[in-house]
Amino acid sequence: MHTLHTRINDSFWNNYMELVRETVIPYQWEALNDRIEGAEPSYAIRNFRIAAGLEEGEFGGFIFQDTDLYKWLEAVAYSLKRHPDPELERIADDAIALIGQAQHEDGYVNTYFTIKEPGKQWTNLHEAHELYCAGHMIEAAAAYYQATGKRGLLDIACRFADLIDRLFGAKPGQIRGYCGHQEIELALVKLYAVTGEARYLSLSQYFIDERGSMPNFFIDEWERRGRIGHWSNGRPSPAYNQAHLPVREQTAAVGHSVRAVYMYTAMADLARLTGDAGLREACERLWANTTGKQMYITGGIGSTHNGEAFSFDYDLPNDTVYAETCASIGLIFWARRMLQLEAKSEYADVMERALYNNVLGSMSRDGKHFFYVNPLEVWPEASDKNPDKRHVKPVRQKWFGCSCCPPNVARLLSSLNDYIYDVSEDGRTLYAHLFIGSEATFGLAGGSVALRQRSALPWDGRVAFSVSLPDGEESVAFELALRVPNWYQHGRPVLKINGEPQDYRVANGYALIARSWSDGDAAEWLLPLESALIAANPLIRANAGKAAIQRGPLVYCVEEADNGAPLASLSLAAAPDLQAIPDDGLLGGCVVVEGEGLTAAPSASGWTGDQPYRPLRKESAPVRFRAIPYYLWGNRKTGEMNVWLRY
Amino acid sequence: MHTLHTRINDSFWNNYMELVRETVIPYQWEALNDRIEGAEPSYAIRNFRIAAGLEEGEFGGFIFQDTDLYKWLEAVAYSLKRHPDPELERIADDAIALIGQAQHEDGYVNTYFTIKEPGKQWTNLHEAHELYCAGHMIEAAAAYYQATGKRGLLDIACRFADLIDRLFGAKPGQIRGYCGHQEIELALVKLYAVTGEARYLSLSQYFIDERGSMPNFFIDEWERRGRIGHWSNGRPSPAYNQAHLPVREQTAAVGHSVRAVYMYTAMADLARLTGDAGLREACERLWANTTGKQMYITGGIGSTHNGEAFSFDYDLPNDTVYAETCASIGLIFWARRMLQLEAKSEYADVMERALYNNVLGSMSRDGKHFFYVNPLEVWPEASDKNPDKRHVKPVRQKWFGCSCCPPNVARLLSSLNDYIYDVSEDGRTLYAHLFIGSEATFGLAGGSVALRQRSALPWDGRVAFSVSLPDGEESVAFELALRVPNWYQHGRPVLKINGEPQDYRVANGYALIARSWSDGDAAEWLLPLESALIAANPLIRANAGKAAIQRGPLVYCVEEADNGAPLASLSLAAAPDLQAIPDDGLLGGCVVVEGEGLTAAPSASGWTGDQPYRPLRKESAPVRFRAIPYYLWGNRKTGEMNVWLRY
Repeated sequence: MHTLHTRINDSFWNNYMELVRETVIPYQWEALNDRIEGAEPSYAIRNFRIAAGLEEGEFGGFIFQDTDLYKWLEAVAYSLKRHPDPELERIADDAIALIGQAQHEDGYVNTYFTIKEPGKQWTNLHEAHELYCAGHMIEAAAAYYQATGKRGLLDIACRFADLIDRLFGAKPGQIRGYCGHQEIELALVKLYAVTGEARYLSLSQYFIDERGSMPNFFIDEWERRGRIGHWSNGRPSPAYNQAHLPVREQTAAVGHSVRAVYMYTAMADLARLTGDAGLREACERLWANTTGKQMYITGGIGSTHNGEAFSFDYDLPNDTVYAETCASIGLIFWARRMLQLEAKSEYADVMERALYNNVLGSMSRDGKHFFYVNPLEVWPEASDKNPDKRHVKPVRQKWFGCSCCPPNVARLLSSLNDYIYDVSEDGRTLYAHLFIGSEATFGLAGGSVALRQRSALPWDGRVAFSVSLPDGEESVAFELALRVPNWYQHGRPVLKINGEPQDYRVANGYALIARSWSDGDAAEWLLPLESALIAANPLIRANAGKAAIQRGPLVYCVEEADNGAPLASLSLAAAPDLQAIPDDGLLGGCVVVEGEGLTAAPSASGWTGDQPYRPLRKESAPVRFRAIPYYLWGNRKTGEMNVWLRY
Repeated sequence: MHTLHTRINDSFWNNYMELVRETVIPYQWEALNDRIEGAEPSYAIRNFRIAAGLEEGEFGGFIFQDTDLYKWLEAVAYSLKRHPDPELERIADDAIALIGQAQHEDGYVNTYFTIKEPGKQWTNLHEAHELYCAGHMIEAAAAYYQATGKRGLLDIACRFADLIDRLFGAKPGQIRGYCGHQEIELALVKLYAVTGEARYLSLSQYFIDERGSMPNFFIDEWERRGRIGHWSNGRPSPAYNQAHLPVREQTAAVGHSVRAVYMYTAMADLARLTGDAGLREACERLWANTTGKQMYITGGIGSTHNGEAFSFDYDLPNDTVYAETCASIGLIFWARRMLQLEAKSEYADVMERALYNNVLGSMSRDGKHFFYVNPLEVWPEASDKNPDKRHVKPVRQKWFGCSCCPPNVARLLSSLNDYIYDVSEDGRTLYAHLFIGSEATFGLAGGSVALRQRSALPWDGRVAFSVSLPDGEESVAFELALRVPNWYQHGRPVLKINGEPQDYRVANGYALIARSWSDGDAAEWLLPLESALIAANPLIRANAGKAAIQRGPLVYCVEEADNGAPLASLSLAAAPDLQAIPDDGLLGGCVVVEGEGLTAAPSASGWTGDQPYRPLRKESAPVRFRAIPYYLWGNRKTGEMNVWLRY
């Protein structure tokens, strides 16, 4: 209704937009075609060629390999919207044509079942990811249609969705099941938004409502299959797939983290679109649990590699952590939907935290190497030699056999413009959630408005907005709602309108400025950044006696490259006197934080290497330490890294 | 040569001797017969009955299940030696007769291969534990013969050992291999000691010398089996079995910890008996690595449950720890042999540390519940809900499917009298390694001597010795060597001879008192105990900024029962003012250590449960904490436990 168009133009984020466009997307296309030397092959394109009858061969990769192509196409769509590129569009069109060639007469598309297990379709919803793959195809189709206006992939997706709609549901003869990996639920909401077809919304609602009902579908299905499975023959554990209870009865985040947040995202979408109060309450409960008790300070979620899963409240080990990139991306998706359900700054705070730390940190500065697991404490030798930490890589990898994360990063960053603003239902309030330089246009209740944002974040907290109105328009009345970030610690940020300080009221974490805006009006939102020490709740045992450094939205970490090893020997001095120092030469330019610390490293404390224990003496030497933004870690020589420092 | 006989009579240890005799041995006999309600069945006796043709049925339990009976018999032997018990001896004799009935014509005994895989004997030395089982039979046989003079089990064992001697070796037609789980190597040394048959020593030497030679036997064997295995079909990883290098070239403890220390024990035996300098150097190198870089303060070894294994130097996580009971017992075996190789106090220090902490702590006060894994930090909810800590049990278990540890504890404790003293090769020096009340007799170079020791350890450090000489003997000259424990921190302990303080010299960590001893002469060795704070080497990252409390040989821990939760919120005050307080009513009577601490628990710091992070404030409240001896932890209601405290 209040159509908005936002184009990012920001000294910090432009680089990422360009990196995705110029490097990540082309690099991933090479990966999808198995042309990256020394990286695990993707097989994605090859599988489609075989399924389309253009090539002979065996299926390669994971059962959900098709999604690598779909997520890449979605990222391409967002990129084309920002930056038209006929050559890239031609490559994408060809890939879409290939998908069409692999589609069955009845609309079905899945290269695994087409090549490897024809006839076994829909017999293992628990493990086989068919609806998950369909979901990613639908998301790509919606995005590509919105970016290019081309219906090719959208038609393929609608035919597939229509097949699924006929096959699944509570009517006689339909499969009364749902996917083992949630994704199609949120995708169908996008398909509804693009096509206006209510049956897609209903199908999403069916999947959400049916989930967790008794008797449990996954267990019955496993019995029907003769108790055999694709990954394991063991009895399904429905909590892993968040199917242990009906979703409205779920109170804590459990199981595989990505599945969980993809589901919560769809639940929030449906709560907004249907006004379902029970669903909304479930979303709020699960949000409070996830972000209040199970989230790392970097916005990572998922404490154990065992099942890539949540463990339980306050269990946030820094070194055996999982904090999968995709899970934080899913958390951002969910936060975005919660904001649409209700504009409360806590949702945007989490969105920003996950974005600037876990997600940005997952990608190397060259855009070609990625973390799947995002630790808060790394000892490279332990990752190498202690199998309990084998999943924690100290160095970003070129590509993964299970490469869900890199294309997910690409599609998030290339659509970041959609995460900055919202307009209220009544068209009277314009919310600025994120402070990212951009040009945006809105159709508000009072008229059309263009808003330019300039932001010096994450290095400096000066944010400025200027309003432009269409020619001839005198003024437009609307309420500008500026987020008060949870990292701003100095009372109230200063607001200036046309250079004059102005008071404001705050509601739900947003400063509200209702006025009649004239062309050229300027609003300044001043959030001076301070290097702050952050403590964790004492129930989070792993961080007892420790503090993390945060400056604005950025969490900081210490690295061996700056501070030597072992980093565990480093602690904060009683008066750490943190100082933010711009270093243009470091890692592409950043602000480092230096401070006073103490070191108990062997050189300072007189230990020899073969003495394990001795009576405690107070032996430590003052040292000046240097912390860098967490998202930049691991871009120098391999070494230790630590977010939480003893004080 | 210098035959010694030692009988423990000690206010602390008598209880354990009696507990083993009256409870542990009878309880384990019930377990071996599958008569413990609610515990996992052992199958051990049933397997022997089936193998002997007395019963029909399938093999039950692990492939090495026979050793549960052998280790029980070994414990019985030691117990009978101390405390004759005709009824127990009859039960043991019947069990030995049963073993005889299960023995094949050619001497072979192994119920798994007899029942389940006849014809497959000796085809999977890597995994099938046949020589390991034989080793435990041999150890039991030697002990039972020494205790009772009965040759029944010894004859069975010799026939089996003779078969093995014919089958294994470097001669044409022999199997040029060795066992995947070291044990027979140390057992054959005992068989040699009991029988005087040099071929058993040579066979032990062969197994040690052959190990790790190239091409690798385990890999060749796996190829011969068609690349299939009992536990796994994967390619053997020889480091797991310490077969990656010839033993003389090994420099660091690697792989499965129990296998490692059992092997090192045999190596030390062989180095002593053969004078092999290369083997001795390897023992010393491996000792320095194991106890200097890979040992917990409790004497636990093995940092990861993955393979029950060592990980690498200084990697000693307290919460994902393994520290298997059997591994510490093996470390004690090894330390004992190192002492025999060279009387240096550091070996006895480690022996004592592992005994009073890891091993004693593995058994409940009722003698019926055991830990397999001995953690230094427990959060029960994490053990329950985070799969990475599933192996760390917060409560001792009744019995285990793989129940190697409980009978190992029984055999160690019931033979503890053999760990107190040594006499030098020349019969002139009498070493007191452990301070355990006892009556002992020695045939020294100067004559026969009886030595009575009284010790108030672990609660008080007063140790007294009195010498008795045979009737009519005026005096006997010998050097008494008293260990200066590494936990004694006050300069030099006071020595008194017949009430008069006396100077002494110290060599290799022993106070040496050479004199002509008369009947009734008394030596006092005064080691006042102090509650000390111990720090860990800064390279042990897990303990950075933390200290442990130790008093005499006992490591202390804090428990939730005394201090509430979360224990991670508790830290030591700047002046902790530790005070040792006897508490006769607590856990059967012990000395607790109280001190001044700080708590940052939510009640003291004003945190709410749904707030994960906030700016650091200095909020903590003084609190008096109470620590109990580590070996007594987990004997009250389930709760958190911590050895290392922040300071």
